[in-house]
Amino acid sequence: MSTDIEIAQQANMQRITQLAKEKLGIDDEYLEPYGHYKAKISLDYIESLADRPDGKLILVTAISPTPAGEGKTTTTVGLGDALNLIGKKASICLREPSLGPVFGMKGGAAGGGHAQVVPMEDINLHFTGDFGAIGLAHNLLSAMIDNHIHHGNELGFDIRRIAWKRVVDMNDRALRDIVVGLGGVGNGFPRQDGFDIVVASEIMAIFCLATSIKDLKERLGKIVVGYTREQKPILAADLHAHGAMAVLLKNALQPNLVQTLENNPAFIHGGPFANIAHGCNSVLATKTALKLSDYVVTEAGFGADLGAEKFVDIKCRKSGLRPQAAVIVATIRALKYHGGADLKELNTENLAALADGIANLERHVNNIRNHFGLPCIVAINHFTFDTDAEIDLLKKKLAHHEAPVVVCRHWAEGGKGAVDLARTVVDLIDKTPSDFRFVYEDDATLWDKVTAIAKKLYGASEVTADLKIRNQIKKLQDAGYGHYPVCIAKTQYSFSTDQKLRGAPSGHEINIREVRLAAGAEFIVLVCGDVMTMPGLPKVPSAVKIDLDEQGKVVGLF
Amino acid sequence: MSTDIEIAQQANMQRITQLAKEKLGIDDEYLEPYGHYKAKISLDYIESLADRPDGKLILVTAISPTPAGEGKTTTTVGLGDALNLIGKKASICLREPSLGPVFGMKGGAAGGGHAQVVPMEDINLHFTGDFGAIGLAHNLLSAMIDNHIHHGNELGFDIRRIAWKRVVDMNDRALRDIVVGLGGVGNGFPRQDGFDIVVASEIMAIFCLATSIKDLKERLGKIVVGYTREQKPILAADLHAHGAMAVLLKNALQPNLVQTLENNPAFIHGGPFANIAHGCNSVLATKTALKLSDYVVTEAGFGADLGAEKFVDIKCRKSGLRPQAAVIVATIRALKYHGGADLKELNTENLAALADGIANLERHVNNIRNHFGLPCIVAINHFTFDTDAEIDLLKKKLAHHEAPVVVCRHWAEGGKGAVDLARTVVDLIDKTPSDFRFVYEDDATLWDKVTAIAKKLYGASEVTADLKIRNQIKKLQDAGYGHYPVCIAKTQYSFSTDQKLRGAPSGHEINIREVRLAAGAEFIVLVCGDVMTMPGLPKVPSAVKIDLDEQGKVVGLF
Repeated sequence: MSTDIEIAQQANMQRITQLAKEKLGIDDEYLEPYGHYKAKISLDYIESLADRPDGKLILVTAISPTPAGEGKTTTTVGLGDALNLIGKKASICLREPSLGPVFGMKGGAAGGGHAQVVPMEDINLHFTGDFGAIGLAHNLLSAMIDNHIHHGNELGFDIRRIAWKRVVDMNDRALRDIVVGLGGVGNGFPRQDGFDIVVASEIMAIFCLATSIKDLKERLGKIVVGYTREQKPILAADLHAHGAMAVLLKNALQPNLVQTLENNPAFIHGGPFANIAHGCNSVLATKTALKLSDYVVTEAGFGADLGAEKFVDIKCRKSGLRPQAAVIVATIRALKYHGGADLKELNTENLAALADGIANLERHVNNIRNHFGLPCIVAINHFTFDTDAEIDLLKKKLAHHEAPVVVCRHWAEGGKGAVDLARTVVDLIDKTPSDFRFVYEDDATLWDKVTAIAKKLYGASEVTADLKIRNQIKKLQDAGYGHYPVCIAKTQYSFSTDQKLRGAPSGHEINIREVRLAAGAEFIVLVCGDVMTMPGLPKVPSAVKIDLDEQGKVVGLF
Repeated sequence: MSTDIEIAQQANMQRITQLAKEKLGIDDEYLEPYGHYKAKISLDYIESLADRPDGKLILVTAISPTPAGEGKTTTTVGLGDALNLIGKKASICLREPSLGPVFGMKGGAAGGGHAQVVPMEDINLHFTGDFGAIGLAHNLLSAMIDNHIHHGNELGFDIRRIAWKRVVDMNDRALRDIVVGLGGVGNGFPRQDGFDIVVASEIMAIFCLATSIKDLKERLGKIVVGYTREQKPILAADLHAHGAMAVLLKNALQPNLVQTLENNPAFIHGGPFANIAHGCNSVLATKTALKLSDYVVTEAGFGADLGAEKFVDIKCRKSGLRPQAAVIVATIRALKYHGGADLKELNTENLAALADGIANLERHVNNIRNHFGLPCIVAINHFTFDTDAEIDLLKKKLAHHEAPVVVCRHWAEGGKGAVDLARTVVDLIDKTPSDFRFVYEDDATLWDKVTAIAKKLYGASEVTADLKIRNQIKKLQDAGYGHYPVCIAKTQYSFSTDQKLRGAPSGHEINIREVRLAAGAEFIVLVCGDVMTMPGLPKVPSAVKIDLDEQGKVVGLF
């Protein structure tokens, strides 16, 4: 059997200028090519599309993730290709992969099997340099903070209250917790600091929510980088850093265009963390795709409790985007795992475990239909070991939910393996008007917002927090940040904050442990559990297997 | 008067695919475009040129740098354009600028006035992402070192003897001296560490000396990253890191092609420090340019004592490149400064100071003619305030040196301001065969190598070092590194190690304070003075003036 990279390297790619012209009607002069198979689309061109009608937006989300794998990106690619196969003009929108996982754990972010985006190596490595630009903009601001303090600290930073770390696009645990400014007077003031991975940078979130270069620059200026001794916030604009940061991000902000294995357009742009940020590709890419296609398929990070919620309550709320339907990806294997089956026994038929595990899927279906008001389709990403009895059981259990269940084989067959799914999606959108709504309104308090999410979506009985945290939330509310959406960072593996509670737990408590203001991204992060913003490498990182062969071809990437 | 960026933004650029085809005969399929005005040239194509004859190589170097500025890059651009104006097929080869100076001190690295390379903003910002790739390859290796130690340290790293720091492409003094791995068991072992700027990375030097992707990977594997308690070296290859590092550098290794304001080809690729490294653009770019042009003009860092020496003894020695002539750039202003004139009074005629300062130029001319065996031309980069009497004096003083003196006005006039220089260079190359030679031979000892440079080129009376340093040098000699060239890191402002000693000091002592093995780059760095591998930002960094205007155009860059 071919590996993902072997399939990708055999792809018959179209020149991106040709694809852009034929599939999207974009002239060469509005493209910035990066090699022959990647391009950025000019912001001027995007502005010129303003009066065109929008296509229909389909969100691909998933059950709570498991080690068994669900295949959300693969399904997004497969559905996009299938829509094109049935004669629809469709594009997909994905996030850019981070280098951390590429060199850490084996696992691609460009789809898999016969449902991939290409050129796969480029997309998984530097791509068009967006993450590099975001990292530099971030670290410029960091350098300007310590430089300001070194040269007299006119703004009065309290060096115990710097709220801006540094970033690198690498899994490097040794940089999580460091002391900088050692070595004497010439090197500044010693203080505690740390590095996050680039995808965890607030700039990544800002980049993905910005609607124009002007909006980007304004948001950058609003970033709170630290506080004075009197706890007065100091902004990036106070350092006059935001102009130069916007200059560094200017080219990166242009959405990237690549293609699927079946030569259909794929916009891959931005990739914020799905816990401390909102986990969706850029607003600009999604809006551009909608102007150029009749159907746009996009995905959100993690399961629907985190990813779809943030897609709705942060990305759509802020941008005016409105999805017409949602696809929930599940696998029989993962559902059995949610029902208590052991990871090693997922290839064996187990109707009892499946019956129990379906509760996780049902909760997500209910959330999407009842709380987001979206028509919903369940896509079963098919594995060879799935039995007919298992699939029948699943369909039976879902029958009363008004959410069609479709078995898909895009991993093995490409777009034609998802034609049923594509037909079902189109049909559902045609027949079922969406009744799209947010989980909470802007004017609810921050506390009420998190409570609404916890009770409605997570099945929790209450939200709790220490007095210190409650005071912080109240302070932000009083300081005029109460109208911001909340961004909940919790484990993706459970509806609760305990990653071992699979299935559909109820009546649990959601405890807020930390509050972070993302003033540039315009949301409040509520951390409910351990959140790792700088991963580490495993004992044998995948980097040791990644190599160039004698012909200079990349091997071992996936 | 227009600023550099205003002149650059008014440039009438040719599409890079068209320029590559018309000026160099490169077909579209061998180019990886990065936007419409930048491209990388495929390594397969470069290999296919192997049997073509080489053009003539001209090195542009300078007197010892002064705060008055000399204009080496500007002269390289001007000479390239002038050679094209007089009907020669000429290209230029330059180093890529580092972001550090861009956001720190005002000062471009893409020429100036009417002798610039474009697109200037892109070249000075991310360009084609090469520095980003080099930084990531460096930091992947760093992460793999600490990760290896964290997971059991099978190779037996002595954490007091890690020889590999981390890098960022930013002037950030707070990162010079840090402690990493704090925060508990999960974050690894606390140890001292630090960040260098990307251009100071050994990978940058390796990148610029590599002759193929295979050579690059082998050199990466040879990097010494640390030592065991028994002081046995541990290599990047021992960590199996070099394959993945080569994958990260694969695209970057393709030389970059852009153009001058006058639409002539410019190869801009790589940019190692000129103190702890050799300070020249990549071997691959220079070799490619020579296959595609009749004349290639390139520059080396700092003055001729450092830059030209390393160009000859490191870059040419290792690559087989052989220059036909050298151009030494000087200004009347800078020569007056070398003769003791005050920085504020350089616009006033001062024949006495000039007469004294010319000694600096004469030493460089003698070195180039006698020790490198190269025909030599003096290019006077003209300033409005230069008087006829000053220029006459200079010509008179140089008359017995067999080094023609040519006044150039390329900054104000572009290529036509350097036509006299171009004619003189062509004429000299035609009439004077070069007698190219190295300052020392491979089989001289490391100590004899540095002594040869110090005595022959610097006018020093002796080389000294503490016993500890002499033992280190002896140890490297005994360990089989004696055949490597030496790379001397000292102040660029003086032939001595005292930056205040202008002109042409003699009889001084060169004291070696530190020895560093660059086993992948294949040279031994001998540090003779303070060397800053991580600059800091000034009180008001130029970043605060760099911005986007209402139309989204970059302003304040230079």
